Amino acid sequence: MPELVFPLDSTKSFTDQAIVGHNRWHPDIPAKVTVKPGDSFRVHCREWFDGAIHNDDSADDILNAPLAGVHVLSGPIAVEGAQPGDLLIVDILDVGPIPQEDSGPLAGQGWGYTGVFATRNGGGFLTEQFPDAYKVIWDFTGGVATSRHVPDVAFTGIVHPGLMGTAPSASLLATWNAREQALIDTDPQRVPPLALPPLPDSAILGDLTGAEHDRVAAEAARTAPPRENGGNQDIKNLTKGSRVFYPVFVDGAKLSMGDLHFSQGDGEITFCGAIEMGGFMDLRVDLIKGGMDTYGVSENAIFMPGRTDPQYSEWLAFSGTSVTLDGEQRYLDSHLSYQRACLHAIDYLQKFGYSAIQAYMILGAAPIEGRLSGVVDIPNSCSTVYLPTAIFDFDVRPGANGPHQVDPGMGVPMSAG
Amino acid sequence: MPELVFPLDSTKSFTDQAIVGHNRWHPDIPAKVTVKPGDSFRVHCREWFDGAIHNDDSADDILNAPLAGVHVLSGPIAVEGAQPGDLLIVDILDVGPIPQEDSGPLAGQGWGYTGVFATRNGGGFLTEQFPDAYKVIWDFTGGVATSRHVPDVAFTGIVHPGLMGTAPSASLLATWNAREQALIDTDPQRVPPLALPPLPDSAILGDLTGAEHDRVAAEAARTAPPRENGGNQDIKNLTKGSRVFYPVFVDGAKLSMGDLHFSQGDGEITFCGAIEMGGFMDLRVDLIKGGMDTYGVSENAIFMPGRTDPQYSEWLAFSGTSVTLDGEQRYLDSHLSYQRACLHAIDYLQKFGYSAIQAYMILGAAPIEGRLSGVVDIPNSCSTVYLPTAIFDFDVRPGANGPHQVDPGMGVPMSAG
Amino acid sequence: MPELVFPLDSTKSFTDQAIVGHNRWHPDIPAKVTVKPGDSFRVHCREWFDGAIHNDDSADDILNAPLAGVHVLSGPIAVEGAQPGDLLIVDILDVGPIPQEDSGPLAGQGWGYTGVFATRNGGGFLTEQFPDAYKVIWDFTGGVATSRHVPDVAFTGIVHPGLMGTAPSASLLATWNAREQALIDTDPQRVPPLALPPLPDSAILGDLTGAEHDRVAAEAARTAPPRENGGNQDIKNLTKGSRVFYPVFVDGAKLSMGDLHFSQGDGEITFCGAIEMGGFMDLRVDLIKGGMDTYGVSENAIFMPGRTDPQYSEWLAFSGTSVTLDGEQRYLDSHLSYQRACLHAIDYLQKFGYSAIQAYMILGAAPIEGRLSGVVDIPNSCSTVYLPTAIFDFDVRPGANGPHQVDPGMGVPMSAG
Amino acid sequence: MPELVFPLDSTKSFTDQAIVGHNRWHPDIPAKVTVKPGDSFRVHCREWFDGAIHNDDSADDILNAPLAGVHVLSGPIAVEGAQPGDLLIVDILDVGPIPQEDSGPLAGQGWGYTGVFATRNGGGFLTEQFPDAYKVIWDFTGGVATSRHVPDVAFTGIVHPGLMGTAPSASLLATWNAREQALIDTDPQRVPPLALPPLPDSAILGDLTGAEHDRVAAEAARTAPPRENGGNQDIKNLTKGSRVFYPVFVDGAKLSMGDLHFSQGDGEITFCGAIEMGGFMDLRVDLIKGGMDTYGVSENAIFMPGRTDPQYSEWLAFSGTSVTLDGEQRYLDSHLSYQRACLHAIDYLQKFGYSAIQAYMILGAAPIEGRLSGVVDIPNSCSTVYLPTAIFDFDVRPGANGPHQVDPGMGVPMSAG
Repeated sequence: MPELVFPLDSTKSFTDQAIVGHNRWHPDIPAKVTVKPGDSFRVHCREWFDGAIHNDDSADDILNAPLAGVHVLSGPIAVEGAQPGDLLIVDILDVGPIPQEDSGPLAGQGWGYTGVFATRNGGGFLTEQFPDAYKVIWDFTGGVATSRHVPDVAFTGIVHPGLMGTAPSASLLATWNAREQALIDTDPQRVPPLALPPLPDSAILGDLTGAEHDRVAAEAARTAPPRENGGNQDIKNLTKGSRVFYPVFVDGAKLSMGDLHFSQGDGEITFCGAIEMGGFMDLRVDLIKGGMDTYGVSENAIFMPGRTDPQYSEWLAFSGTSVTLDGEQRYLDSHLSYQRACLHAIDYLQKFGYSAIQAYMILGAAPIEGRLSGVVDIPNSCSTVYLPTAIFDFDVRPGANGPHQVDPGMGVPMSAG
Repeated sequence: MPELVFPLDSTKSFTDQAIVGHNRWHPDIPAKVTVKPGDSFRVHCREWFDGAIHNDDSADDILNAPLAGVHVLSGPIAVEGAQPGDLLIVDILDVGPIPQEDSGPLAGQGWGYTGVFATRNGGGFLTEQFPDAYKVIWDFTGGVATSRHVPDVAFTGIVHPGLMGTAPSASLLATWNAREQALIDTDPQRVPPLALPPLPDSAILGDLTGAEHDRVAAEAARTAPPRENGGNQDIKNLTKGSRVFYPVFVDGAKLSMGDLHFSQGDGEITFCGAIEMGGFMDLRVDLIKGGMDTYGVSENAIFMPGRTDPQYSEWLAFSGTSVTLDGEQRYLDSHLSYQRACLHAIDYLQKFGYSAIQAYMILGAAPIEGRLSGVVDIPNSCSTVYLPTAIFDFDVRPGANGPHQVDPGMGVPMSAG
Repeated sequence: MPELVFPLDSTKSFTDQAIVGHNRWHPDIPAKVTVKPGDSFRVHCREWFDGAIHNDDSADDILNAPLAGVHVLSGPIAVEGAQPGDLLIVDILDVGPIPQEDSGPLAGQGWGYTGVFATRNGGGFLTEQFPDAYKVIWDFTGGVATSRHVPDVAFTGIVHPGLMGTAPSASLLATWNAREQALIDTDPQRVPPLALPPLPDSAILGDLTGAEHDRVAAEAARTAPPRENGGNQDIKNLTKGSRVFYPVFVDGAKLSMGDLHFSQGDGEITFCGAIEMGGFMDLRVDLIKGGMDTYGVSENAIFMPGRTDPQYSEWLAFSGTSVTLDGEQRYLDSHLSYQRACLHAIDYLQKFGYSAIQAYMILGAAPIEGRLSGVVDIPNSCSTVYLPTAIFDFDVRPGANGPHQVDPGMGVPMSAG
Repeated sequence: MPELVFPLDSTKSFTDQAIVGHNRWHPDIPAKVTVKPGDSFRVHCREWFDGAIHNDDSADDILNAPLAGVHVLSGPIAVEGAQPGDLLIVDILDVGPIPQEDSGPLAGQGWGYTGVFATRNGGGFLTEQFPDAYKVIWDFTGGVATSRHVPDVAFTGIVHPGLMGTAPSASLLATWNAREQALIDTDPQRVPPLALPPLPDSAILGDLTGAEHDRVAAEAARTAPPRENGGNQDIKNLTKGSRVFYPVFVDGAKLSMGDLHFSQGDGEITFCGAIEMGGFMDLRVDLIKGGMDTYGVSENAIFMPGRTDPQYSEWLAFSGTSVTLDGEQRYLDSHLSYQRACLHAIDYLQKFGYSAIQAYMILGAAPIEGRLSGVVDIPNSCSTVYLPTAIFDFDVRPGANGPHQVDPGMGVPMSAG
C-alpha cells in the first residue's frame, strides 16, 4: 500500500478528521499535504454526502439530503514543482470501497446507494417522469453489485472517482462565477435552478478560519459541474489503471478528489447517481513541464482509460431523437435525444416486469454506454444507449416467446417531493 | 451469396436502373420487391449523391453537391405478412463496398470520401470553425482505410449503413411534416436551415409518375434526419452481424436502406461525413407479430451490434463541457459539450503537425467513440471523445519527449463556401 | 477487388483449371504467377479434397476421402526480388467462402463440412474414442454457421486459411524428408502412421510433366504437417486483417495457400477438421530484405492477428492433466492433457443431451480456445479448453436447476471405419 | 472486507501462525476453519516458499530454495454440508498482494519474484537452454509490474492463485501415489526427476502431531502437480470475478489455496515461475448437491474466468512445431512445439537487445497466451505463443527500420547450478 497521506476515520464526520478537506473550489484553500512528482500515495475519500444517506428502505434521506455540503473532497494535495502551464499526470493505481470495512453506516462499507432527487433538489436527467425522491441500496459482494430493490440484475463494478481536479486560478474562478451567474440571471427562479452560485453556508475550506474563511467561502465555486480543471466529470471509465492529464492553474497544482462510484452508466442519469460510496484511491503523480502549451491542453482534462474495465460482448441498444415527448421538434438536441433513448430503454424493461423507476435505476447504476451517434442530421440528433445483456439474470433480448417476467419485489423506496 | 433482389449497375445513374429506388419517405412509394420472413437477400446500394463526388483533389464537387437529391435509397422492399404493430427483425448478414470493382468513378469502387459542407449547405458539427467545403479521399485496401490527404493514419473499416428504415404511415408522415415545419417557422431564414421541408424538386419515388408522383413528392419527407422509423441514424455500430428491430407502420413494412459508410466516428461530425461509399448489403428479415406492443418499441429502432467490430484496447480521450468558445455558459447542452470535446481533440492533434481540418476529418471518419459522460451536473454536461491510439502510425500519447511531428503532405482540398 | 491472379472455376476439377496448383512442397514446382512487393491480389482456393465431400447426410465420402491428393493448393506465387534470407510479409486483406455462389456441390458454396477420419485414415485427436468416420454439414448464413447435424449452436465465422507458406529450399526439403522418415522407421506399420513420406501417386505439381514431374513427385514433401515454411499450421487466428511474416528459402519465395476454414477451434481437433471450404483470399505482399537474420526468424512463421475476430466475453473452461484414461501417469504431456480437457468438455456437453460425437464436432468447429496453462508442474501438465457460452442457444453454465436438454435431432452421420 | 477466517502474520513463519496450514494433500489433515454455503470470507496466503526468496540481486536463494517445503497452503477449509459427489462452487471475489503492506521482506509486500530453477532442482520448461538458477524481482505499482532486471517492459497484473483445490479421498490419494510412483520407477535417477513421491521431511500438516502426523506425512501427496482436485493448475485466468467448480471427494470438501501470482504467462514456463507473491483471497462458496454426476464433472475443475482481465488488442505471435533443436522429428508433441514457439520468441526478443534469460523471464511473467493451434497434422503439432505488443515501451513489431535496441541494464541475477 502506498503511503496514506490523506486519512479518514470512518467513525468521525468529515470536519472532525485529522486533515479536513473541502467542498468548494478556490485557489486559496490551503494544501496540508504535499507530494513529489513520481510519488505514489493513498487518499481516503468520503461519500459525497458525508454519511447522510443510510442503508435502509426509505428515501427520506435523499429527499432531505444536505445539498449545500457537497461534494466533500479529499485535498487539496500540492505537487512539488507544479506551476501554471504544466500538465499534471495522475495515474489511478487503484480505487475501491473502504478497505477492511464491509458493514457499517457509511456508504462504501460493503454497500452504496443510487438516488434520484426530487425536482426541487435538482431532479435527475428524467425529472419530468420521476419528480420525487428515490433510493436504491446496492450490496457489494467482491466486485459485483446487486440490490434488494432491483431484482435479477448484477454487474461487475466499474469503480472510479466521480470527481477529481486541480484548483482554479483566481482569474479562472472569476470566469466561472461570472459565466454561471449570467446563466442564472436568465431565469433566477427556475426549479431546478440553472446553476449553483457560491454559497457560504456549509462551505468546508480545509483549515481556513475567520475572515479568510468567509472571503473564500463567498468566492468559491460549487463542485457540481465539471469545468476546465476536470472536476465532477463523472466519467465512468476513469477506472484503475487510467492515466489522467490535468491542466495546472496554480502553483502546486492542488489536486483534490472524491465522489467515488462503485459503478455508473454513461451520463450518471439518476444524478445521485452512480452507486455512491466512500473508499480509497491510490495515485501516482508526475508533471509534463509546460505541457499545456506543448500539447494544446488548456481547458479540459484528457485521459487514457485503464485496461481492466468489465468486458461485455453482447449489447442491446436503444435510440432516441430530438423530439420531445409532447411531439415538439427540437434542433440537434443531443441531450434530448439521449433522454428519449433512455426512456425507450425504460419502456422496454417495463415489459419484463420492472417498474419504471427500477428500470431508471438500472440505467443509472449499471455500466451502460451512452453514445452521440448522429449529431448533424438536421433537425434530429440521434443518441443511443447500450445495455450489456449479461447483467440480467434472464434473456433480455426480444424474441418470439415474449418477455420473461421478473418479480419486482419490494421495489424502489420513494419519498414524495 | 443470397439472391440479389435489388441490383444496381455501376455504369448507370440511379434513375436508369432496372428497379428505381427513392430519395424521400412516403407510404405510397410502391415496393417493387417482396421478400418473405426468413428470407436472406442481397441489395445493392448507391453512394448517397449518386456518383456526384469524384476521386480527385478538389472540393468543388462537395461545394456544389446535389443536396436536393439525397439520399438515393434502395427499396422499398415489402415483407410478406408485415402489418402495423409488428417488429421487423433485420439481420445484417454482410455489408461492404461494391464487390469485384476496386477502381472506377463511383465511391465504393475501392475508395470513398469524407466531406464537410459549406455552411450554406448545412455545414457540419463544427461549421463555425470550418465554414467552407472540404473533401478527403480514402483508399480501401482490404479492410483498412488510408488517405493521401491525411497521412500517417490507418484504420480497420467499421462498415455499416448510415440509413435504413421502414416506411412511415400517412399519419406518422403528417406528424413529421408538421413538427419540422413548426421548427422551421421559428427561424425560416436561418443558414444553415433548422430543418428541410418536403421538396418536390429532385424527388425520386420509384416508378411513380404523373399526378401521383406529384402528390407524393409534395408530401414526402426528406431523408436527412433519423426518425421513429430508424432512417438516417448514422449509428457506426450497425455492422456485419448486427440485428435491428424496426417498428412496422404500413402493410409490408417497406424497408429501405442506403448511405453506406466504410467507417465513421460517433456523431458523423463531418456531416458528409463518415467515409461515404456505395456497395451491398446482405440481409435477412423476420417478424415479431405484434412486437411493438409486446416489447414497448413504438417510436425507435432497437438493435444488437455485431461481434466483429474492430477491437482497440488503448484510447486517448478528450472531454468538453457546455461552455461556448466565447465563454458563454449553456445549460446541460450535451451537443455543445461534444463539440468542445472534439475541438479539444483537434487542438491536440494539431500539435503533432496535422492541420485543423485534417484532425477534423480523422474524427469524422475513424472509429472514434463519443460518450455522454455526465448529463446532470448543472450547468455543465460533460461529453467525451475517445480516439483509438493504434490508428496512428506514431505514438500519439502525451509524454516527456513532446509530440511527434507528421508531415501533413498535400493536405485537405478546400473550396471556399 | 484486387486483381485475380489465381482463378478457379467452380465447375471444373482442380487439375482442369487455367492455372494448375499443387499438392506437394518442392522448390522446383514452377510459379506461373508473379507479383511485386506492395501488390494486392486475389487468389481462389479450392477446398482441400477438391470437391470429394458432399452436402449430404452420409459419412461415406469422409471414409473414402482421397487422402493422397491433399491439400490442393493455389500457387506457387513468385514475389519479385524475394531472396533467401528475406522475410516475406503477407497481409490477409480478406478471406471468405466462394463469392457470389451460395449453393452448389463445392464446399464453400454456402456450406462447409467438418469430418473425423476413421483411425486407419489418420483418425483425429480423439481417435481412440471416435474410431469411425463422421461428417457434419454447416450452413453459412452471412457470417454465422449452423448445422442440421448439431442443433442449438451457432457461431460467427473466424475465417482463415489452414495452410499458407513459402517453398522449401532443396536442402530444407531434404531435411524434412530425412527427419520424418527416421520417425516413420521407428514404427513403420503403425496405424495411424507416424508421418507421411513422399507419395508420387496423386501428386499435382503445377504444369510439370514427364521425367521432371516424376523426379519432383518422388522428392516432394506432403502438405499435412506445418513446418519451417509455415504450411499447414491451422492457426484459427490468421483472420482478415492479419499480417504474417514467412522466411524465404528460395528465389521468389514461392508462396502457396489453401485449406480455407470458415471456423475452427484451437487444435483443429477433429482433423478434417475445422469447417472446410473453398473460397478466396485477398493478399498483399511485401519484403523485409535480410529480415530472417535481422529479426531472428529463420524456422517459423510469425504473425499478428487481425482486429475483427469474433468477440466473446463469457467462457466455460475445462482442464485436463497428463494422465491417460486408463490411469497411467505421463510426464508433462501437454498433448495428452489437452485431450483430457477436451474429453471433459465432451462429458459435460453430453449431460445437455448432445451425443458424444456432436460435442466433439462442436469443439472442432467452434472458436474454442486451447491453452497450455501449466507445462512445468511435474509430472502433470495442465491444458485448458475454453468454450464461449454465447454460441449455445441455451444457458450452458452449471447451475442449481441442472442441465437444459437439447433435442439431438438426426445426429451426426457415421460410417464404420 | 469479508470475515478473515485464515489470518497470517507477515512477521511470523508459516508454522508459527495462529492457524497452521499445510503443504501436502491428504484427506486427514484437519480443517480448523468451517464456512457455510453462501458465505464470503477472506483468506491470507503466504508465498509458496514461506519467505525464503529475497528482494535482492542474487539468485542464490533460488538455487538453494527449500523445495521440500512447498507449497505452503492456507486451509483446509471445511464447507458445511459438502459431501462426496457434490460440486463446490468457489467464487474468487478478489485476490491481491498483501494488503496495506507495500514494503518488507515477504514477496507480496509490494514486490514479487520470478525464478528459474537449476536443472537439478527441477529446471524449467527450457532447462536445456537455461540450466542454472536465475531470479528477477518485480515491483508492483498499483496494478502494474516492472523490474530493474528486465527493462522497458510493464504489464497490468493478471492476479490469480496458482493453486487451489479440494482434498482427495483416501482412495484417490492412493491412486495418485501409485501412478506417480510407477512413472518414477521408469527412470528413478532422472535429473530432473519424473515426479515427486511423498516426502515426510518438511511436511506441514496443520496441527497434526505424533504418530498421526507421521502416518499422514508418509502418505500425503506433494503439491506440485495439478490433479483431479484442481490443485496447482497455474491457470493465469483464475482472476477476480472467476467462478470455479471443484469435485468434492471428502466430507466438507476441505478447500485449500495458495501460491498466489501477480501475473503469469500461459504455462508458467519459468517454473518458479509467474510472479510469486503472498497476499489475500476473498472467496464465496456454494454447493451443487450431486453436481459431479449431474454435470459429468468428476476428475477435473471447470471454471468461468472473470470479466476484468487486462485487455490487449494487438499481439505478436510465434509458432513452433514438434521438431527438436537437434532436428529430430517427434510425433505430435505439443509440449515440444510450445517449447519451440517460446524459443522462437526468445530468439526474436534478443534482436532487440534483451539477453536470452531476460526474454525468457518476460515470457514467464507477462500475460502471454499459449495456444494449442494444431494437434492433428502428423507428425507436427503446432503451438503458438502470443505476446501483447503494448507491454513493451517500444515498437516490438517487425518493420523496415530494424529492431529498436534496449539497454539491457544490470540483467538477470544468475547462480550457477
